[in-house]
Amino acid sequence: MTLDEAKEALGVCRGEIDAIDRRMVALLNERSRVVERIGAVKANMSMPVYEPKREDEVYANIQSANEGPISHEAIRRIFERIIDEMRTLQRTRMGGK
Amino acid sequence: MTLDEAKEALGVCRGEIDAIDRRMVALLNERSRVVERIGAVKANMSMPVYEPKREDEVYANIQSANEGPISHEAIRRIFERIIDEMRTLQRTRMGGK
Repeated sequence: MTLDEAKEALGVCRGEIDAIDRRMVALLNERSRVVERIGAVKANMSMPVYEPKREDEVYANIQSANEGPISHEAIRRIFERIIDEMRTLQRTRMGGK
Repeated sequence: MTLDEAKEALGVCRGEIDAIDRRMVALLNERSRVVERIGAVKANMSMPVYEPKREDEVYANIQSANEGPISHEAIRRIFERIIDEMRTLQRTRMGGK
């Protein structure tokens, strides 16, 4: 492989990554809109934001959907960050609790 | 809203979240397969895994795609985790460097 061929290959890969990332950003915002609806229901019913049993279900769902090459541990760490950010958003919308 | 209606609404929302999460897991694995191709090219050419300029491009791409409600700061933190996990994967496949 020449340097020019390598650069060409990297450019193609990076275009694919940028497209995937834009789809991921759209999905994350779609997820956060659903989380906001959950927050509204919970606020209306004075239910707690944090429900450990439901979070276990979320992790079980992503682990069963994960076919690799990302490891179960890595996908869990990524979703821990996602869930943490969404919980913060939900609390902010519910009035800083 | 009665408690039963609230539970029904939460159930619907959670079904949507589980479906979004499965699509996200698929996208993350698709992304990691592209990262592996990048790793193979770089290993072949003895190029460095970490390229700060390219990471700036990745962040610029996600920020410009982000229409909210997730904040730019939150989406960046989520992608920092994703990119960190993918870098680890790329290094592992390139022989632990």
